Amino acid sequence: MHTLPHGGLALSSLDEQLLLPGTKGLPLREPLRQGAISVQGWNVLRGDTSFPVAVLKQASLRHNLAWMRAFCERRGISLAPHGKTTMSPQLFGAQLANGAWGITLATATQVQVAHRFGVRRVLLANQLVARADIAAVLALLHDDPDFACIVLADSHAGVARLAQAVAAYKLARPLPVLVELGLAGKRAGCRTPQEAMDVARAIAAAEGLALAGFEGYEGLLVSDDREHDLRMVDAFLAQLAALVRDADAEGLFDAPEILLSAGGSSYFDLVARGLQGVGGLSRPVRPILRSGCYLTSDHGMYRRHIDELNAREGAAHDGLRPALEVWSAVQSRPELTLAILTMGKRDASYDADLPIPLYTARPGEAMVPTALPPGCAIVKMNDQHAYLRLPEGDPLCASLAVGDLVGCGISHPCTTFDKWPLLLAVDDDYNVRHALNTFF
Amino acid sequence: MHTLPHGGLALSSLDEQLLLPGTKGLPLREPLRQGAISVQGWNVLRGDTSFPVAVLKQASLRHNLAWMRAFCERRGISLAPHGKTTMSPQLFGAQLANGAWGITLATATQVQVAHRFGVRRVLLANQLVARADIAAVLALLHDDPDFACIVLADSHAGVARLAQAVAAYKLARPLPVLVELGLAGKRAGCRTPQEAMDVARAIAAAEGLALAGFEGYEGLLVSDDREHDLRMVDAFLAQLAALVRDADAEGLFDAPEILLSAGGSSYFDLVARGLQGVGGLSRPVRPILRSGCYLTSDHGMYRRHIDELNAREGAAHDGLRPALEVWSAVQSRPELTLAILTMGKRDASYDADLPIPLYTARPGEAMVPTALPPGCAIVKMNDQHAYLRLPEGDPLCASLAVGDLVGCGISHPCTTFDKWPLLLAVDDDYNVRHALNTFF
Repeated sequence: MHTLPHGGLALSSLDEQLLLPGTKGLPLREPLRQGAISVQGWNVLRGDTSFPVAVLKQASLRHNLAWMRAFCERRGISLAPHGKTTMSPQLFGAQLANGAWGITLATATQVQVAHRFGVRRVLLANQLVARADIAAVLALLHDDPDFACIVLADSHAGVARLAQAVAAYKLARPLPVLVELGLAGKRAGCRTPQEAMDVARAIAAAEGLALAGFEGYEGLLVSDDREHDLRMVDAFLAQLAALVRDADAEGLFDAPEILLSAGGSSYFDLVARGLQGVGGLSRPVRPILRSGCYLTSDHGMYRRHIDELNAREGAAHDGLRPALEVWSAVQSRPELTLAILTMGKRDASYDADLPIPLYTARPGEAMVPTALPPGCAIVKMNDQHAYLRLPEGDPLCASLAVGDLVGCGISHPCTTFDKWPLLLAVDDDYNVRHALNTFF
Repeated sequence: MHTLPHGGLALSSLDEQLLLPGTKGLPLREPLRQGAISVQGWNVLRGDTSFPVAVLKQASLRHNLAWMRAFCERRGISLAPHGKTTMSPQLFGAQLANGAWGITLATATQVQVAHRFGVRRVLLANQLVARADIAAVLALLHDDPDFACIVLADSHAGVARLAQAVAAYKLARPLPVLVELGLAGKRAGCRTPQEAMDVARAIAAAEGLALAGFEGYEGLLVSDDREHDLRMVDAFLAQLAALVRDADAEGLFDAPEILLSAGGSSYFDLVARGLQGVGGLSRPVRPILRSGCYLTSDHGMYRRHIDELNAREGAAHDGLRPALEVWSAVQSRPELTLAILTMGKRDASYDADLPIPLYTARPGEAMVPTALPPGCAIVKMNDQHAYLRLPEGDPLCASLAVGDLVGCGISHPCTTFDKWPLLLAVDDDYNVRHALNTFF
């Protein structure tokens, strides 16, 4: 009942597991079957959960899933959302059910998790180089011949490592490899189109490997000069497209379609446009967007990027919505303008910005969140504490008391998801509807 | 066999669990019983594991455990190491077996985890305020009357919340509460001795609560002026000691001993000295140190603090040793002075400092780590990538190739432990001896 035809686990198997007291966010005093969360009647604003607790707003998730599906359909681009953002099988499932072509991942262990829960097509968007990690991926492909995993290479050394490993496995098909194009001074990837073509030729020539296409990540082009960034992004995408044409002209491809991929969550409109026009080749080109953070967006870094994107798209009225919040309790009110929250670096992102305080609620009173006034800010976090600075003279802030709840938005979903083995999906009234697991 | 007399789980129960492919750091292609890790013959330098992998050096752990035990015995101080650092039941067990009086924790869910694995005495060093969290702790105390959990309060509101909740439970003994003394402009805790005495009186007067002592955290006193910091620490400890005397003179204590606690991992020598001299009261005083990071120390922030501490103690030859390393593979060598590693914000601390590159090793060659030269530095991390900058002209660095391994020290153990559900204990030759679990 919980096993899929190819041996993967159905998502419903997660609802069968026993959650133990000690699971962050859950008010458990004895073990509870995960699926039973939906009938507990917990409400976050009523203070029914443990605090801190991470919540995902169902309506925003559904909106973002539909929004991105429509965007990709309109642009004629495939979506392989980066799964490292959430590492949540239920969210992978929602993305695939909403038109995603596959799931992008970053490590061999992430690929194993996705495969376990039935993901059938993975784009592994980091270089796969460690011996045991290559073997882990090849073993999946060997044992489950219908599973697809596309990997990257940006060097002859990388190609040689893959080719050597593949020789030890009898794979049903050659291992599809994308050449990674990089950016000077930035991360992985060939630094020039010449180098990239050279690596492409090595892949095409290697026994057991197949050149699947080209890949790059434009999301590193973030500086203080956005106009310049945008020109650089367009130029980078043009380079990627030119590589596909050149490799096709050389006859390096040997698969039914050519893959061409880029796209974080900041410039995916530009990526969709930049990868669109590549055609007239020996075989169809599939442009693939890899954005992961679109799913939850945020109240910080991505809100800013997506506001810019909406302005470019003319879609400000209907953009992506923040879906992820962390709620905690005021544990101390030691000074007039300071509240200490039961939340810290273990619970919310702090790499892009500190959390953004949005709402307060007092359990036992009206079960609606009250917006915090401007001037409230988390100014510091320790491992298990957050320092909420309050503006002087605001009556709501003056009345904020020990035990009151504070809901924070976050900046950079990836580094909040990885702090929660389990997040709670809530409706508009913060009723807890079900749980979502992560596997980091 | 795996159940302790009071219903907790023996640590050996963790060795019975099946680890699944997809567990970070492990080179699994099929499920493996955790206890079988010890007979796999894996060696990190040979590249047998998945990368990245987090390793704990057994010899350093053993050294630090013995060092701290001797330190506390010499100073006549009890140790309740902060368990939030590691959240590892096996390490809690090692600390308790090496003389620790109890385990300090930060949240109700952490208390539940520790209790599940047999910890019998907990100091909960954050304010316990959320309704479900108070209930979770009181339920443990009610159902397991020999379990001890000491909690904090720093306000009348906090005392009232605890007193109200206790009234609903029939506890075998009153709930022991420490008053938290704070520091102006810093975190939780009463801002003046007068406030602290006021809260102490409220606890002593409350039905179902017992004033257990006083508590503070001097570790927040870190500025650029260490001489000033040290004077402030001494003054703060003197305030705490004075509070104990005053509360005793008022007859507010009603337990066999008085608890007096402070101590992070930076100034624990000062804490040991500062809390030592309190005697001649109506009952014995137990000074309790709460340092957590001593167990692994690090190659960054705590190395600096502990070097200072060693200088104060005159024990530089035999100080605490760094025990925690994260090893990853070079996934790309895109530029002469740049290597990209398969490690990122998901794998190593980045809040105090970025990871510190220490060693390299080439699987298949000599199985000893080679020290990286000065000038190597991790200059940036993304979620799943680290940027290792290499000095120009160094032959070892020039030869660093795709697939080579790099071992990094970290700065601030807490924020590395929380990225690993499982860490591997290694001997001096990086042979994997067993696994350690964490529960975040």
